[in-house]
Amino acid sequence: MISVEDARSRIFAGLRPMGDEIVALADGLGRVLAAPVVARLTQPPADVSAMDGYALRAADGVGGARLKLIGEAPAGRPFAGRVGPGEAVRIFTGSFVPEGADTILIQENADAADGFVTVRESPGQGQHIRRAGMDFAAGDVLLPAGRRLGAREIGLAAAGNHGWLRVHRRPRVAVLATGDEIALPGEDIRHGGIANANTPMLAAFIAAHGGEPVMLPPVPDDGAAIASAVDAARGADMLVTTGGASVGAHDLVLEGLSTEGFMLDFWKIAMRPGKPLLFGRVEAMPVLGLPGNPVSAFVCAVLFLGPALRVLAGGEAAAPQLEPARLGAALKPNDLREDYLRARLERDEAGWVAVPLPVQDSSMLRALAQAQALIRRPPYQEALAPGEMVEIIRLDD
Amino acid sequence: MISVEDARSRIFAGLRPMGDEIVALADGLGRVLAAPVVARLTQPPADVSAMDGYALRAADGVGGARLKLIGEAPAGRPFAGRVGPGEAVRIFTGSFVPEGADTILIQENADAADGFVTVRESPGQGQHIRRAGMDFAAGDVLLPAGRRLGAREIGLAAAGNHGWLRVHRRPRVAVLATGDEIALPGEDIRHGGIANANTPMLAAFIAAHGGEPVMLPPVPDDGAAIASAVDAARGADMLVTTGGASVGAHDLVLEGLSTEGFMLDFWKIAMRPGKPLLFGRVEAMPVLGLPGNPVSAFVCAVLFLGPALRVLAGGEAAAPQLEPARLGAALKPNDLREDYLRARLERDEAGWVAVPLPVQDSSMLRALAQAQALIRRPPYQEALAPGEMVEIIRLDD
Repeated sequence: MISVEDARSRIFAGLRPMGDEIVALADGLGRVLAAPVVARLTQPPADVSAMDGYALRAADGVGGARLKLIGEAPAGRPFAGRVGPGEAVRIFTGSFVPEGADTILIQENADAADGFVTVRESPGQGQHIRRAGMDFAAGDVLLPAGRRLGAREIGLAAAGNHGWLRVHRRPRVAVLATGDEIALPGEDIRHGGIANANTPMLAAFIAAHGGEPVMLPPVPDDGAAIASAVDAARGADMLVTTGGASVGAHDLVLEGLSTEGFMLDFWKIAMRPGKPLLFGRVEAMPVLGLPGNPVSAFVCAVLFLGPALRVLAGGEAAAPQLEPARLGAALKPNDLREDYLRARLERDEAGWVAVPLPVQDSSMLRALAQAQALIRRPPYQEALAPGEMVEIIRLDD
Repeated sequence: MISVEDARSRIFAGLRPMGDEIVALADGLGRVLAAPVVARLTQPPADVSAMDGYALRAADGVGGARLKLIGEAPAGRPFAGRVGPGEAVRIFTGSFVPEGADTILIQENADAADGFVTVRESPGQGQHIRRAGMDFAAGDVLLPAGRRLGAREIGLAAAGNHGWLRVHRRPRVAVLATGDEIALPGEDIRHGGIANANTPMLAAFIAAHGGEPVMLPPVPDDGAAIASAVDAARGADMLVTTGGASVGAHDLVLEGLSTEGFMLDFWKIAMRPGKPLLFGRVEAMPVLGLPGNPVSAFVCAVLFLGPALRVLAGGEAAAPQLEPARLGAALKPNDLREDYLRARLERDEAGWVAVPLPVQDSSMLRALAQAQALIRRPPYQEALAPGEMVEIIRLDD
């Protein structure tokens, strides 16, 4: 049995980021940049007004002064002339400051009538002017390669005048559930059977993490059937299996994979829930074998599949983010396996309180769906009292 | 000027959740349930083994006892017979416990040879048996209406034997940017112009919050052009405009909307960045007017558009989640406007530390993209010292 951290490092070592493609800016949501986004223009492009008001020379902006209005500078239509002594130009937020002017008198501090504006309160030099390039200059790196694109990143790339983005392709990830007992959800379930939760759950997980799921038809606990399904998965960027990894004396997924030339990297890790985790490759295709139990499969997906998808999609090789929380109940000492307890979160003045769910049995899918976090317990962690600090992974995204 | 909270309440009051549709279970990611998901079966369907081992009568499970192996119960294929005195059945995780047996001897505590199994360590009665219905029983509500579907919810609905889900339709939200200065990203930008960040940014925001964006072509600062675009947006479930709301003396978006029979609910709120926020309706279509500045537009989207999309999509009417953090720098007293400072987050032993970015100018889109949180400052909040508690909204999802 290897540790969670070792397992993750070995998975990372076995993955390569997907190649590049271009997408229209508006289709970039959730994608990962394959190249930096470099500003194609300077923002603001010139000195601009930060307020609605009047552009004038600071030397003229003394209380009571009456300045001649010589024109307007609406946003997008710069004033063509020059502001001379005793003159002012009506200006709006975002408008270019006309030549000659070096301050903005905001409209709240001005009285305009009959083609003149009277200064009520004197603006300092440079007041309410945003300098050219204050946000960024042409040639600046706005977003680094590897950044996942949210709404703000798309807005920033747009502001930098990009209509297309170079991103990593989405990894196509095949999901293969194994088990004699599983039936497709909604279909008739024979005596002794259960509905297949893993395939749709993991497909949704893969989609939520930037991958394109391929739901392979589930196969029974039979080495030949598994081998045939693995063969059919060839060409996927990754294969995820569930089940079969702790069925009695021999491992059926391992048997089926071996027929297809599987190179095993590791099998079994020191964690709970989810001991029988398997990783290796069939030719170039990485294979991650998750436990058959949906709760264990989901926890292992959070710890290993999510980070793996991130690397495939071109992002950083990193563990899920751990956050501090206080414990809401006492916990006994932990054993040699790293433990991930399902917990709900409560908030108080000082931060988050993580309360372990009363039943931690790994068959409780309903409890998993109610959990808001996993509490991570390192191997051999001592008993903990309520109020002590723990590390959590939040699930409520 | 009304408060942020009042503005949000009035927006919520003006919205109705979308009607229902059905989606295949596997397409449910991110959708919101329009009806509860009720379990169609009991899970586990019968008493099942929690481990690989042997099913037997607890009375027979004494150290050194030698029991006759009368068969196997693989998962999905229940043993048809009955376990009598002196007998045992080979069993696997998830298999139905055969009639007559009332405990599981785990394989690590057993020696099997020649059709017999010898007990090495005595199991207690009921040991390693998961009872029928331990996770849920047929008829139980697994997921309530209004729940947004993530991978776990889809797994749970699958386990409850649902192949279809009843969800709210996605709201179709039209985005209309106004401004003489804006050009489409990637196209030539004339003197005085800038690239349109708001339309693609808000479209991505809408998609990320479960809506279907419609990117209307931007229009110049012209009441008639705006009116015509508003008319073209009819039939959308919501219209979001940007800009035009503080252009000099008159509001051009308001003018354009009025031509189309706009019923104003409110205009201008006591917050920073983002004072000129507008809400109302054109016939049945709610209209949310955001500021033209992309930073202000984004912050207002977080505070108002995200919650509005959630309500339209069938979810809860709620403000964005506030979380506690400690402040990483001193802050001066706040004025009458609720303030949302862009901040980066650092982690220490006790939790999150929110460090306001040095420049808070609302034109800094690059800084916005680097921020990980917004620090909320209520109106008239006193000066704060480093280390004091503040409330944040996290942006790094």
